[in-house]
Amino acid sequence: MTGIRKFVLTAATLALVTSLGLQGCGQAPSAKTADPLPSWTEGAARDEIVAFVEKVTTAGGPDYVEPAERIAVFDNDGTLWSEQPMYVQFLFIVDRIKALAPQHPEWNEEEPFASVLEGDVKSALAGGVPAILEMAMATHGGTTTEEFEAIVTDWITTATHPKTGRLYTDMVYQPMLELLAYLRANGFKTFIVSGGGIEFMRPWTERVYGIPPEQVVGSSIKTVLEVRDGQPVLVRLPEMSFVDDGAGKPVGIQSHIGRRPIAAFGNSDGDLEMLQWTAAGPGARLCLYVHHTDAEREWAYDRESSVGRLDKGLDEARARGWTVVDMKKDWKRIYPWQ
Amino acid sequence: MTGIRKFVLTAATLALVTSLGLQGCGQAPSAKTADPLPSWTEGAARDEIVAFVEKVTTAGGPDYVEPAERIAVFDNDGTLWSEQPMYVQFLFIVDRIKALAPQHPEWNEEEPFASVLEGDVKSALAGGVPAILEMAMATHGGTTTEEFEAIVTDWITTATHPKTGRLYTDMVYQPMLELLAYLRANGFKTFIVSGGGIEFMRPWTERVYGIPPEQVVGSSIKTVLEVRDGQPVLVRLPEMSFVDDGAGKPVGIQSHIGRRPIAAFGNSDGDLEMLQWTAAGPGARLCLYVHHTDAEREWAYDRESSVGRLDKGLDEARARGWTVVDMKKDWKRIYPWQ
Repeated sequence: MTGIRKFVLTAATLALVTSLGLQGCGQAPSAKTADPLPSWTEGAARDEIVAFVEKVTTAGGPDYVEPAERIAVFDNDGTLWSEQPMYVQFLFIVDRIKALAPQHPEWNEEEPFASVLEGDVKSALAGGVPAILEMAMATHGGTTTEEFEAIVTDWITTATHPKTGRLYTDMVYQPMLELLAYLRANGFKTFIVSGGGIEFMRPWTERVYGIPPEQVVGSSIKTVLEVRDGQPVLVRLPEMSFVDDGAGKPVGIQSHIGRRPIAAFGNSDGDLEMLQWTAAGPGARLCLYVHHTDAEREWAYDRESSVGRLDKGLDEARARGWTVVDMKKDWKRIYPWQ
Repeated sequence: MTGIRKFVLTAATLALVTSLGLQGCGQAPSAKTADPLPSWTEGAARDEIVAFVEKVTTAGGPDYVEPAERIAVFDNDGTLWSEQPMYVQFLFIVDRIKALAPQHPEWNEEEPFASVLEGDVKSALAGGVPAILEMAMATHGGTTTEEFEAIVTDWITTATHPKTGRLYTDMVYQPMLELLAYLRANGFKTFIVSGGGIEFMRPWTERVYGIPPEQVVGSSIKTVLEVRDGQPVLVRLPEMSFVDDGAGKPVGIQSHIGRRPIAAFGNSDGDLEMLQWTAAGPGARLCLYVHHTDAEREWAYDRESSVGRLDKGLDEARARGWTVVDMKKDWKRIYPWQ
């Protein structure tokens, strides 16, 4: 029996016991010897994760944490799935601009839309954050929440990655899926805390990560209640409401979760404040950075990258002894299909 | 065995197995015959609740709802605890003004603070919503989130109700506590969606209602991340961020939960949009209004009340066949200590 099979057996058994209330009657669970993290190489990163989980779940131990307080927060882009060569949500925006172009003949003349329509994304991005926001607002507002959910669902189940030709939801990291399941099996509640759009993630995070919509925190635009054809609808306005990145992440955590996490997982400087906020609480803490070091199986980037830059965060992680995952060395597999 | 009894057997077994990991080995639990709603009188309201829960939990039935989609939302003031003679949070504001007055000598001259300090709350409220907001901002901003949590915890565990002399957390409705537990035992996730301040509720909702901080939605003020003495803190600003009332409630639900509830519980016109939003989804729905009809054991008020007015909502509930709880008739007990 491979490690994966053993793990799946464990997860399935656990799920069965929890959901159906099956009773073991004194039999030692067969799960006991299964490896919950089969895609993780033996080494420091894996050891630190396991040691932390054992500490906070050992009843009566000095670092024991009540299950209700076992909050773990995960960045998404670059932490749970690949963010190269460009944030997935930006590729969604590009596709939405193309889809909406017939209703916006003026975009043929107006930047940054004109460049996108000519296939020149690089020029479109030359306008920096204001240009990106303009494109995001033009493509994320103007629908009801239900219409937007349908658009995202349609896109995420059909659009494919420019390099691998795979669905974006296939570009998730197998070791992180195992880590999510391992934490949940140990009583943790797992949340996404991403700079990405909250309603861009919610339609698929439960299926892909096992994280339900109510445990997704992200950037958002304003919505208002309207009545259309006698029915209430929530209309998405082309106006930012909250940017869940950098110093915004602890704010988003407080707003949505209302308690400080004891474990935080990120990969870029945009996650640094989230890790600092997590580290600043009392008791045992796990702060972990995924370091992209594998140019062959994924991408290698850190201090100089325009997407997912990890510079200050890497220094701080090393200075404070946080866990740094060396993707090339610490992960046996990157994607589930490899 | 009635449907109710069957349910209790299942729920009790599940609760036992889940919380203690006990193993039954064939013994029937003694809870078999227990009634999950003992404080509810036999009648239409109770029947409608039980019928709804049985419908959505009957696997294979036409109205079956997956556990993940069993979202139930509860207003707080007047729905889960008493809101008379005044919203509890306003009484907290009054006490905070008194506590902060030594640091604000100018309040002796300035309205609405001067009236509050003279014990004339009625005059303080004469300024309407702007006066209330001014008092709320002056007392809810200016601290860190952790300081504010400590202030609320201290107050809620010591301040007492002007009429009964009981702690405010004793002024919760026993039938609603039973309803919350009944829904959770049937796989529902229960949320508070209140016009009250989110951080005013979170410090005690888990202990009192079994609702954790991450399942509380409410009005909020802005917070920002700062570094003080080398440690990150979240500072509460005297500026509104979101008003979770009326048309704001569906917006708050979407923002925090990200899916439409299938059951909603309120008591005032401020809950109407939440009930309408819930009702507008497909499949079986439960929309319920608590109608305050018991002047003797609680309070009797509806269309003319300045606190918790129920006017349009009562008409709509009757027109649409929503469940209306007649507190006097439908509840055997009001408070847990009665």
